[in-house]
Amino acid sequence: MSSAENQDVSMEEIVSLCKRRGFIYQGSEIYGGLRGTYDYGPLGVQLKRNILNLWWKVFVEDREDMYGIDTTILMNPNVWVASGHVDTFNDPLIEDVETKQRYRLDHILEDAGVDVNGMSLEQMVEVVKEKGIKSPEGHDLGNAAKFNLLFKTSTGSVEDEKSVVYMRGETAQGMFVNFKNIMDSFYPDLPFGIAQIGRNFRNEISPRDFIFRVREFEIAELEYFIEESSWEKMFEDWVSGMMHWFELLGLPKEKIHQLEVPEEDRAHYSKRTVDFEFEYPFGTKEIGGLAYRTDFDLSNHEKHSGVKLRYQPKTPGTQPFIPHVIEPTFGVDRMVLAVLSNSWREDEVGGEKRMYLALPEHLAPVKYMVCPLVKNKPELVEKAREVFGALKKKYGAVIWDDNSNVGKRYRRADEIGVPKTITIDYQTLEDNTVTVRDRDTAEQIRIKINEI
Amino acid sequence: MSSAENQDVSMEEIVSLCKRRGFIYQGSEIYGGLRGTYDYGPLGVQLKRNILNLWWKVFVEDREDMYGIDTTILMNPNVWVASGHVDTFNDPLIEDVETKQRYRLDHILEDAGVDVNGMSLEQMVEVVKEKGIKSPEGHDLGNAAKFNLLFKTSTGSVEDEKSVVYMRGETAQGMFVNFKNIMDSFYPDLPFGIAQIGRNFRNEISPRDFIFRVREFEIAELEYFIEESSWEKMFEDWVSGMMHWFELLGLPKEKIHQLEVPEEDRAHYSKRTVDFEFEYPFGTKEIGGLAYRTDFDLSNHEKHSGVKLRYQPKTPGTQPFIPHVIEPTFGVDRMVLAVLSNSWREDEVGGEKRMYLALPEHLAPVKYMVCPLVKNKPELVEKAREVFGALKKKYGAVIWDDNSNVGKRYRRADEIGVPKTITIDYQTLEDNTVTVRDRDTAEQIRIKINEI
Repeated sequence: MSSAENQDVSMEEIVSLCKRRGFIYQGSEIYGGLRGTYDYGPLGVQLKRNILNLWWKVFVEDREDMYGIDTTILMNPNVWVASGHVDTFNDPLIEDVETKQRYRLDHILEDAGVDVNGMSLEQMVEVVKEKGIKSPEGHDLGNAAKFNLLFKTSTGSVEDEKSVVYMRGETAQGMFVNFKNIMDSFYPDLPFGIAQIGRNFRNEISPRDFIFRVREFEIAELEYFIEESSWEKMFEDWVSGMMHWFELLGLPKEKIHQLEVPEEDRAHYSKRTVDFEFEYPFGTKEIGGLAYRTDFDLSNHEKHSGVKLRYQPKTPGTQPFIPHVIEPTFGVDRMVLAVLSNSWREDEVGGEKRMYLALPEHLAPVKYMVCPLVKNKPELVEKAREVFGALKKKYGAVIWDDNSNVGKRYRRADEIGVPKTITIDYQTLEDNTVTVRDRDTAEQIRIKINEI
Repeated sequence: MSSAENQDVSMEEIVSLCKRRGFIYQGSEIYGGLRGTYDYGPLGVQLKRNILNLWWKVFVEDREDMYGIDTTILMNPNVWVASGHVDTFNDPLIEDVETKQRYRLDHILEDAGVDVNGMSLEQMVEVVKEKGIKSPEGHDLGNAAKFNLLFKTSTGSVEDEKSVVYMRGETAQGMFVNFKNIMDSFYPDLPFGIAQIGRNFRNEISPRDFIFRVREFEIAELEYFIEESSWEKMFEDWVSGMMHWFELLGLPKEKIHQLEVPEEDRAHYSKRTVDFEFEYPFGTKEIGGLAYRTDFDLSNHEKHSGVKLRYQPKTPGTQPFIPHVIEPTFGVDRMVLAVLSNSWREDEVGGEKRMYLALPEHLAPVKYMVCPLVKNKPELVEKAREVFGALKKKYGAVIWDDNSNVGKRYRRADEIGVPKTITIDYQTLEDNTVTVRDRDTAEQIRIKINEI
């Protein structure tokens, strides 16, 4: 094993590697981009797929109490009225009186050392006045207002028929709205969960930190329906379940911090919320969350839709009731970023500095690289193609590299976290052995082809 | 083998089964729905995942010439100007002068037996007047207009700063906009392709036919970049490739029709387009398409973005050029619907009518059902749980059923296309054998547990 520890990698280094090697690109880049959007390139999409396929296996396929769904981004607008998003899914903004630029009021206060927990918009404005807080440009601050984060669009073709429709701000409402469908189709016993992975949209005033805070992002989420009396035990079980999941991502326990969210910061319906924070290069920030949401969501949807959203126990004579819910949420892009930054390593090999991504083997977008020692010897190339073909057929995620010299190829494989590189050389033609180089130790061993 | 042939199943039967058993639900159903949206339930999402994972394996992972990406739904609005969508992505609508209801003008003319191929809006209106064609309610038809299908939203917080942004109407532009990124990161040789699976949005005036024509849908698509001179051969290769793919979905060749799109119906830049149509219960309609788009897209993006989108051959002294492109497109929801309707079977078993879904085993959302003969014998249940646990660990997609009698369980398994049902009975406790029932033949055999 190499002794390389996870380095203090900068976001600039990560962003640059992601673009250069094809993990993640700026969205609409040739048009100057679109703020808060990023596209996954070939390596990024494969890394994300590996994470999400594992998530689906662990939280849906391997369990008997989980029901996976995939709902639309456009939903009936009443969904977002019932959920409270239309009224309360707001950020507080304040205007620079000279430039008319708007800023997040809470961020401006926090930067000035003010604890904004539980403050109303009016209270925040009051503090700005009292303390004479200025805009980042040093101007006076003026009008403040709440700004709704839901993107709006409309359906229909005739102006007066048009109805406002929102792009979903979270996946959770898809699960609540389908609660009755799952009950009717599957008659599950409590506790049971509904799971979904999907794209979400928030009109963030200041997207930042690469794929951490963006306007379009992916969430992997569960709504786990329980009896009210069991919530404390269930909550603890999910704390463990989430920690176990972060371990599967190769994220060390010491870098995951559980933040017990105090009452004044919780949504009013939540009796307990724990934020899971990861040590990102730009600070310790939320990677996922766990919230006990009581029966708030189903009750509200029952009220607004007029449809009963009850659980009927199978024991004769028992009354139907609205179950409570515990919600484990995982930011998909945030998991990708955590895995990437956690894998960054720098060390010395043969007196030269090198950088590599120590991605867990089961998440690495490429499992093997196969190379002929040189590309102008047809026998070598032919043999290498044989090995490549066999591995590709078995693992899919195998690449071929015959450019430049072996040392440079190793560096290229290290940068994208390829666990093993296999080189076919002259000795291969004699005894059917190849060299297998390990990414982390940079050591090479010679083995028979059929032992790979 | 059962002699059951694919039946003339009606859409009503499919929609009803999908809802009852948890394949597909109406979107936002408890709120009365949202036109043209459907949610995938637990069985539907698993069926779709099986199709899409196979697609990704066949078209991306197993090949050396493919680069998978995952781009955002919100893109810089200039993307849609360059692509021509802002100007030309329109449906012709005409108004009923009394009800003010709008209709698809081309559909109204087609229903009246008029061939609208290549007609302009003005020409269509002329024909309405000449022939005195009425609205479906029998009223006069009045104003006609083109209606753009892109959903609009806006980003930013200040009114005058707000910029219109479109929800993508197709995945293809994500590939064109990332062409340079892929070139820069991977230096591929021609031909090579960029692949993507993703959600798309079109403000259809009349969504219909269940998940066939909806406002939010999924596309699996490739942009395959080639040298102009090779286009005819490449096109033929892709015709075969697409037909091979439909075979992998279990769709019989006879039900797939290749429609050579005549020049007047093709986009002006397309030199050849073949629509692949499937025999759905509501008619023979498009399931996928193949278009040779010349260098239209990259040329336009080069013009509008000012960024060179050229391929530089590796041979010294050669000039960079804009490659041409062939585009195989697959409607994901349309594939799900084709697989479902193609699997519908009705026959008689033991003198009773039954219905089953003859889903190909590799696509079936559930591979095994495991049952104890009765649920009130702890020894049977315990043994059955053992078998269930082992299979679930290996395959994931395994369900447990101990309700009602064995015959009813078989019917339930048949309806959702479970290939094999395993029953643990008293004999199991003696000799470790179980009965395995085959979905298609309804025949049972007895085998040792370790032979499953």
